[in-house]
Amino acid sequence: MQKLKNAVFALALATVATAANGAAVEHLTGFVDVDRQLALEASLTKSLSATELAAWSKHLSAHAHHAGSPYGKENVQFIAELFRSWGYNVEIEAFDILLPVPKERELILEGPSGYRATLIEDILEEDASSAERAEVLPPYNAFSKDGDVRGELVFVNYGIPEDYEMLERYGIDVTGKIVIAKYGKSWRGIKPKLAAEHGAIGAIIYSDPADDGYARGDVYPTGPFKNSSGVQRGSVMDMPLYPGDVLTPGEPAIKGTRRLEIAAAPTITKIPVLPISYRDAEPLLRALGGEVVPLPWRGALPITYHIGPGPARVKLKLVFDWQRITIENVIARLEGATYPDEWVIRGNHHDGWNHGASDPISGLVALLGEAKALATLAAEGKPPARTVIYAAWDAEEPGLIGSTEWVEKHRLELNSKAVTYLNTDGNGRGFVSIGGSHTLEGFFNEVLASVIDPQTKVSLAARRRAMLSVTGDEKQREELESRKDLRIAPLGSGSDYTPFLQHLGIASANFGFGGESAHGSYHTLYDTFEHYTRFRDPGFVYAVTLAELLGRTTLRLANAQVLPFRFTGLADSLKLYLTELEALAEKKREEAKRNNKLLENNAYGLALDAKKTLGAPKALPKVPFFNFAPLQNALAHVEDSATALDKALDAGDLGNVDLVVLNRRLYQSERALTSTAGLPGRNWYRHQIYAPGFYTGYGVKTLPRVREAIEAKLYDEVDHQIAVTAKVLAAFAVYLEETRALIP
Amino acid sequence: MQKLKNAVFALALATVATAANGAAVEHLTGFVDVDRQLALEASLTKSLSATELAAWSKHLSAHAHHAGSPYGKENVQFIAELFRSWGYNVEIEAFDILLPVPKERELILEGPSGYRATLIEDILEEDASSAERAEVLPPYNAFSKDGDVRGELVFVNYGIPEDYEMLERYGIDVTGKIVIAKYGKSWRGIKPKLAAEHGAIGAIIYSDPADDGYARGDVYPTGPFKNSSGVQRGSVMDMPLYPGDVLTPGEPAIKGTRRLEIAAAPTITKIPVLPISYRDAEPLLRALGGEVVPLPWRGALPITYHIGPGPARVKLKLVFDWQRITIENVIARLEGATYPDEWVIRGNHHDGWNHGASDPISGLVALLGEAKALATLAAEGKPPARTVIYAAWDAEEPGLIGSTEWVEKHRLELNSKAVTYLNTDGNGRGFVSIGGSHTLEGFFNEVLASVIDPQTKVSLAARRRAMLSVTGDEKQREELESRKDLRIAPLGSGSDYTPFLQHLGIASANFGFGGESAHGSYHTLYDTFEHYTRFRDPGFVYAVTLAELLGRTTLRLANAQVLPFRFTGLADSLKLYLTELEALAEKKREEAKRNNKLLENNAYGLALDAKKTLGAPKALPKVPFFNFAPLQNALAHVEDSATALDKALDAGDLGNVDLVVLNRRLYQSERALTSTAGLPGRNWYRHQIYAPGFYTGYGVKTLPRVREAIEAKLYDEVDHQIAVTAKVLAAFAVYLEETRALIP
Repeated sequence: MQKLKNAVFALALATVATAANGAAVEHLTGFVDVDRQLALEASLTKSLSATELAAWSKHLSAHAHHAGSPYGKENVQFIAELFRSWGYNVEIEAFDILLPVPKERELILEGPSGYRATLIEDILEEDASSAERAEVLPPYNAFSKDGDVRGELVFVNYGIPEDYEMLERYGIDVTGKIVIAKYGKSWRGIKPKLAAEHGAIGAIIYSDPADDGYARGDVYPTGPFKNSSGVQRGSVMDMPLYPGDVLTPGEPAIKGTRRLEIAAAPTITKIPVLPISYRDAEPLLRALGGEVVPLPWRGALPITYHIGPGPARVKLKLVFDWQRITIENVIARLEGATYPDEWVIRGNHHDGWNHGASDPISGLVALLGEAKALATLAAEGKPPARTVIYAAWDAEEPGLIGSTEWVEKHRLELNSKAVTYLNTDGNGRGFVSIGGSHTLEGFFNEVLASVIDPQTKVSLAARRRAMLSVTGDEKQREELESRKDLRIAPLGSGSDYTPFLQHLGIASANFGFGGESAHGSYHTLYDTFEHYTRFRDPGFVYAVTLAELLGRTTLRLANAQVLPFRFTGLADSLKLYLTELEALAEKKREEAKRNNKLLENNAYGLALDAKKTLGAPKALPKVPFFNFAPLQNALAHVEDSATALDKALDAGDLGNVDLVVLNRRLYQSERALTSTAGLPGRNWYRHQIYAPGFYTGYGVKTLPRVREAIEAKLYDEVDHQIAVTAKVLAAFAVYLEETRALIP
Repeated sequence: MQKLKNAVFALALATVATAANGAAVEHLTGFVDVDRQLALEASLTKSLSATELAAWSKHLSAHAHHAGSPYGKENVQFIAELFRSWGYNVEIEAFDILLPVPKERELILEGPSGYRATLIEDILEEDASSAERAEVLPPYNAFSKDGDVRGELVFVNYGIPEDYEMLERYGIDVTGKIVIAKYGKSWRGIKPKLAAEHGAIGAIIYSDPADDGYARGDVYPTGPFKNSSGVQRGSVMDMPLYPGDVLTPGEPAIKGTRRLEIAAAPTITKIPVLPISYRDAEPLLRALGGEVVPLPWRGALPITYHIGPGPARVKLKLVFDWQRITIENVIARLEGATYPDEWVIRGNHHDGWNHGASDPISGLVALLGEAKALATLAAEGKPPARTVIYAAWDAEEPGLIGSTEWVEKHRLELNSKAVTYLNTDGNGRGFVSIGGSHTLEGFFNEVLASVIDPQTKVSLAARRRAMLSVTGDEKQREELESRKDLRIAPLGSGSDYTPFLQHLGIASANFGFGGESAHGSYHTLYDTFEHYTRFRDPGFVYAVTLAELLGRTTLRLANAQVLPFRFTGLADSLKLYLTELEALAEKKREEAKRNNKLLENNAYGLALDAKKTLGAPKALPKVPFFNFAPLQNALAHVEDSATALDKALDAGDLGNVDLVVLNRRLYQSERALTSTAGLPGRNWYRHQIYAPGFYTGYGVKTLPRVREAIEAKLYDEVDHQIAVTAKVLAAFAVYLEETRALIP
């Protein structure tokens, strides 16, 4: 609607201002009045209070507040009331979802020795919160199926695909057995999924002290790491298929939506699975016989790890209450003064596994701080130009349920209006990390240059650069020298950005601090205010910095005259991903050649110890050469059109362009990277650049059609997946050209 | 003396024969009558008996037989008697040396908690030998000085130079403290040496279960690995300075030799040091406070490892009986029929730390088997052409004393007559490994092609190639394809070859099997016949193969008309070492540049956690460019002359050359790689190509003058050390040219 005069705008977009800290020069892409915006941001920064964040945190994490819990409902009211008090238009949006909670949990080592797993976490004198019992969910994996199974035990390391390949070399088949796997290397839900695919009848997951316990550092309450009774809870829903309510894939879990039968829900596990502590795992592992594990499989318990199967025999019994509960998202809205139909969405979940002081409250209190600051500005007559929506999601822990159902419900409106989705979750201290849409990479870098690290007093960008220059690998260090912007990470899954980014194609990002805050409390009984304030972020120093970072990000996106989307950075990352795919194919080709040649020469037969059971690996299918040309051509096209568009945008001479039309083209560009056909076998996931891995769970797969076809050795499909992805990229290039054409 | 006619010899050297196993074709360099030699070797192979080796092993390892012990003396008589019974001319050569044994050993954790280390190894029902107490030496480090010290404890990881650099970054000074270090990463004697150099007043060494215990596999008696009471004994004499009797450096410890005062002996440690078990180490480590160790420092005890210093305070008291004992080498001689003054020497030590079934008896019984077989051939009228000397050394364990004193005593005669020295020591099962003089690399490869692996029935060379093709790194795999011969390893130190090779320049090699036989019994009470026959080499299968390998090697060297020394293989390895040095200099240069740039940019200041004590590393001295040209030129010269000489030798047309003169030139060629000036600061070590590392102990340093100058950052000295080494190589090239000139 608003049109700016040529001359004014050309001037404005060339403007930079001196930063608040007096040293650096601030670049604010897309602003006519940079000084005004910086003044708003300075005022926002000033209004943030660690004391206030701490008080909210203490209140919100005072009791267990998992989805459906009484204190969770109280928190919803508390959060809603805060927003209302600041002048927000608040809605509590409820959904009716399936959420199993345990009725019976039993794990018994029945032979050759006996042991009944305690399955409880110690009450600690040093942490009063740990004494809460009645309101607390015991350790379990949400969306494990019921089961009562008995079988020989097999140790499967991390329970990821390569571990089963190794077991095959030992001649070990897990069919009819119960597997025990370490947490780590994959998202937890992958472990029972793979175990079931290999024929196991039950699965146990534990945190080995090598990865998460005394071997990493002092354990709680002496230090932050996982003590011998701590158990990581968590969902094992098959989220790489679809997240959200298991009974309503793709649709909101509201009245009128048809629901699957529980037995037909494809994201519930096929076998029962239970997480346990390393104290409970030790007697089980000690009772295993068979071969000693390969060296990289060993953990830090004071035993010799054996693979089994048996002689350890275990009984695993799990009975769940398959309850339907109501979950509640708090949606708080600050109307945009100029562009009310352009939404900048900012979210963090509010449900925890127990007290959740770190996960999710540390991110949520930052969000509340930002929201209050923005409301204050609005009350002073400086409302955002665009509408800002703050969301506190429910039921993220069991499977991103609150956010997913909300996105599914508001699909059409979001498609039209959502500018970006900005996510946080549990936060620590140390170095900033950002994962997200590369169309905003340059913009995020500008924000990182504006925010000062509280410990070192340099910008977040400068501290991150320093860290990478010290600890980065050669490639990262080279990139630091050669690339203007810090490369942001692509997003897989693991928090509420997934439905926005990967289902709808809304440019999204996830922010947090870490690297100096050990995370042994994750999903245990010990994620408490006591633990958080001693070890995660004493003084809420980085919680405030997170609020400043997200506050500035939100406010810039809400106020920019021209939205700061740019496309050459994306093209550069796409080029990197393509290079990775070519290298991956070459690596697989060489591996197959080498492996098969070794088999041909009987090299394994000669090299392996005949007194051991470890055999040669299988022959590998020959890897053909793939036709990457369509992707190369499409990418060249994207590069050209991105360069042209960025140049036009950066020139600042936008003529008589309709800014509403231009901005809409810019923020909807991410939609052009999706396809309604979704990904092979999982059409809920529509983004063709970023996806969580089907067999990694949270780890991202970029250009997923092609990458997963190569990784799964589906070589016949690769050329087709290249072509499909190339078509999306080619259409994206045209989208950019059409957008460029708007500018004279 | 003997001269061969041109025509005959030309024919002979081109001769090859079909191998015993019917398949491969045998190349025997230097033989006129290949078939005769192969027949001799076949007969040798046939006469070897696992039963006999087992019987000798059982007898020799029935009781503890360390240097100076009663059973050691009995073993000497037993060995000598065997040799005599086979017709050898046997001499028992005695030396009078210093060997401290413990009178008092006390290690007490005095605070904050209390613990008195048991310092004893468990008696095991499953191993009758472990019940022997009276004759057994308790765990100690030979040539630790006496001491009675008290101090705060500091954990120094492996106690190697980079660990002290890390401690410095933590601001930790070990001055006045007692250090506790893990066994591994360096030879044990380096640990007290470095600790003392850094100001520590005492040192404790233990085997962490991560390196040598339950984390590697089942512990004894269930499996072969070190149990919680096992302690690795061993010498801590400063052998990189000089080995042998500490009081008589460079001279034989016989009557008339002037001896140093004990207090003046430079190879005795400067501080008391004691080895302990991981059971005794655990309470000490558990009592440490201070920072948690860096991740790579952690072991496998079920604790969080801390660095200290303190609050753990320990008392370490060691009192030794500084006794003078008589040690006895058994020297058995089989006179050469044709060239009695050319000696092929074959040795293995006979003293163990306790029962020593693996170390050294497993190698010694192979030697006895070979000796018997050679004697049998001689008795059948087929004596060796050259004199073969079998040596069973005493007091290898405390510091290569028997062999070193013998070499020092017979220096002149050895210089003139020694053709080669062939060493074995403890043996296991699996893959052959050879380290030694590269002038014999081609020859060793021929032998490896002749001996059949007992498990896979292919040649030792083929099995080793298969293993490297499966587990080797890229460089090794590439070499397998591109290089005719398996590259043999250069020798550092650790067994009796050191005085021969590195003091006198006698071409030497060390042989053994391993890779399929865990070695947790090493230097513990459990190196027993029981352990050996269950885990190291059941059935003495590889002991027999070792006897065949060494028997053939010895017999070929004893009988070859022209000794199989060749020089292009050496030139190739020298080229590799030079490349490594250039790469090392470049790496150091880049490291210094990068490190100093990071310091300049305050990158560490920004990247490190201000709440931790870890600081930035120190600035590094700038690394200048070195003048490698003298080495490059000398090496080019060596290559040319080696190529010419090898070509002349391989042509087989030796004209009227005097074989005694030629062979003497060939076997004395290694002498030309030494310099009487020795190495900087340690003139006992004369070899200019191979040396044990001054700060690694057993790990080899090739081209040691240059390599150690770069590693020690003595950059001002590098050009000089290059020039000195180049001079030796240039003279060696001339030596090869002169040798070439003998052949028409």
